[in-house]
Amino acid sequence: MIAVLAGGVGAARFLEGVVQVVPGDDVAAIVNTGDDVQLHGLMISPDVDIVLYTLAGIIEPTQGWGVRDDTTAVLTMLQRLGVDTWFKLGDQDLAVHILRTALLRAGARPTTIAAQLRAALGCPVRVLPMTDDAVATHIITPDGAIHFQEYLVRRRARDTVLGVAFHGIEQARPTAEVLAALADAEALLIAPSNPVVSVGTILALPGVRAAIAGAGMPVVAVSPIVAGAPIKGPAAPLMHAQGFAVSALGVAQCYRGLIDVLVIDDADRALRPAIEALGIAVVVTDTIMRGPAEKAALARVTLDAARHHAAGTHP
Amino acid sequence: MIAVLAGGVGAARFLEGVVQVVPGDDVAAIVNTGDDVQLHGLMISPDVDIVLYTLAGIIEPTQGWGVRDDTTAVLTMLQRLGVDTWFKLGDQDLAVHILRTALLRAGARPTTIAAQLRAALGCPVRVLPMTDDAVATHIITPDGAIHFQEYLVRRRARDTVLGVAFHGIEQARPTAEVLAALADAEALLIAPSNPVVSVGTILALPGVRAAIAGAGMPVVAVSPIVAGAPIKGPAAPLMHAQGFAVSALGVAQCYRGLIDVLVIDDADRALRPAIEALGIAVVVTDTIMRGPAEKAALARVTLDAARHHAAGTHP
Repeated sequence: MIAVLAGGVGAARFLEGVVQVVPGDDVAAIVNTGDDVQLHGLMISPDVDIVLYTLAGIIEPTQGWGVRDDTTAVLTMLQRLGVDTWFKLGDQDLAVHILRTALLRAGARPTTIAAQLRAALGCPVRVLPMTDDAVATHIITPDGAIHFQEYLVRRRARDTVLGVAFHGIEQARPTAEVLAALADAEALLIAPSNPVVSVGTILALPGVRAAIAGAGMPVVAVSPIVAGAPIKGPAAPLMHAQGFAVSALGVAQCYRGLIDVLVIDDADRALRPAIEALGIAVVVTDTIMRGPAEKAALARVTLDAARHHAAGTHP
Repeated sequence: MIAVLAGGVGAARFLEGVVQVVPGDDVAAIVNTGDDVQLHGLMISPDVDIVLYTLAGIIEPTQGWGVRDDTTAVLTMLQRLGVDTWFKLGDQDLAVHILRTALLRAGARPTTIAAQLRAALGCPVRVLPMTDDAVATHIITPDGAIHFQEYLVRRRARDTVLGVAFHGIEQARPTAEVLAALADAEALLIAPSNPVVSVGTILALPGVRAAIAGAGMPVVAVSPIVAGAPIKGPAAPLMHAQGFAVSALGVAQCYRGLIDVLVIDDADRALRPAIEALGIAVVVTDTIMRGPAEKAALARVTLDAARHHAAGTHP
């Protein structure tokens, strides 16, 4: 069993590589739900859906979210009805949100809903929402705290970031399925996701760090920062606000005490000594996932790093 | 002010005629909500929407419900997700249900939601749900009681009908807007809708019959039964189960004590004496609404009948 801490787009692409190397049933993606948002009365779980759609092969490939070739008839009509439609939702995507919302209102757990969607869509890996409880990531700006999706989508990540708050995190708990996946994992991989608001949210859940430490498996992260910038998303201002350098070294500092190995890009090889000085082993490789071959290669390097670490050998 | 008791398709077509004769703002359609149904967690109000869509000019003209040229991307995806989609819902139509559901969950009244939809869609007449309370029309069959939509749509009105029950009707009340429309009306028209489960539901609401009697305006119904059969819908088995003949005379018996005049089709002129024997005046005309001209003519005849009755003259 391999467990993977996952955000959205970067994690989904990384998992596309992992399933080329490991049977999907042996992979549990533990997915951030702090970005979940309710819009038009519908419960939307962006990172869970990005992972499901990507692995099921129906993702819109350019933007990395939503369903490929989706239409927007519903949203167009909602606009006509005077609704503010700042969050783009395609019709097929909305079907998922309608079903999720109906099942939640009928008392189903997010975990069982994700399993139902996985089966229906044909997603090879197990997709485990980090928690069944409500957690909302808020970005603290000079104008006040705003929901992460509001910050990212409506305001296009242009606000100055003063900090991050995970509403509800103290009362939230990882699910039994998440704890079992961590306990059973031969290796824990941390996908190249935002270390502050994707992986950071999962790690902030009470009990998750202890479960990882208790399991004793090798922990290998892939840096989402290459040559001083994230491949995608608002990691830079969020890392900066948390006092981390926007670099592979900053990622290492985020994960210090948690990870055994950090996989960094060839472009960042000069940072190796500084990262190793934090007590973190370093693997340098091409981390840019251009296509299936690069995704598989990155997954193989990451899994090899975990195996070598567990065996006490060095790559 | 003209008030119209309305079901779905027949009423909407009749109202298309009324607005050619009377300014839309002077018309209040009091619409049956007993057919409302919750599907996929969404609140659907078929008769209200049929009236709104028809008068706003966006109705699918052949079937008489749903939005013209609508697509079914959401429903197709719901099917793929394993959902039973026996009730056809187009994408634009779903946008209305999504908005309605969100507003209801936020505490809005069905009446204010209908007013908001009317304004957004550009529907000329006031559309007043008969009640803001939940009423569910059930059809009693040998297999038990089933929701009206289940009977009509899923089971295609094939069950033997033993009776009709309006769940929640005793606790439901007409809205203040409905009572005001009845109090202010110079005439009350009863559209050619199902007398048992469309108009019958409105009339079964506690207080509605008394409000009509108290207002003292002329009441004129248009028979939905022509030559022994309804133009559309399952009126025949429902009238039969309630002990009424499936004829314009049966309609007159349904409305006995309530209406002053019944407008019947030329095809039913032989029934005139029997209807008049019930104390109901009769106007014979062409009631088949083939196009705009026939709709306007029927509205004109019906309104004239109300005026003549009020004036004590005879057409």
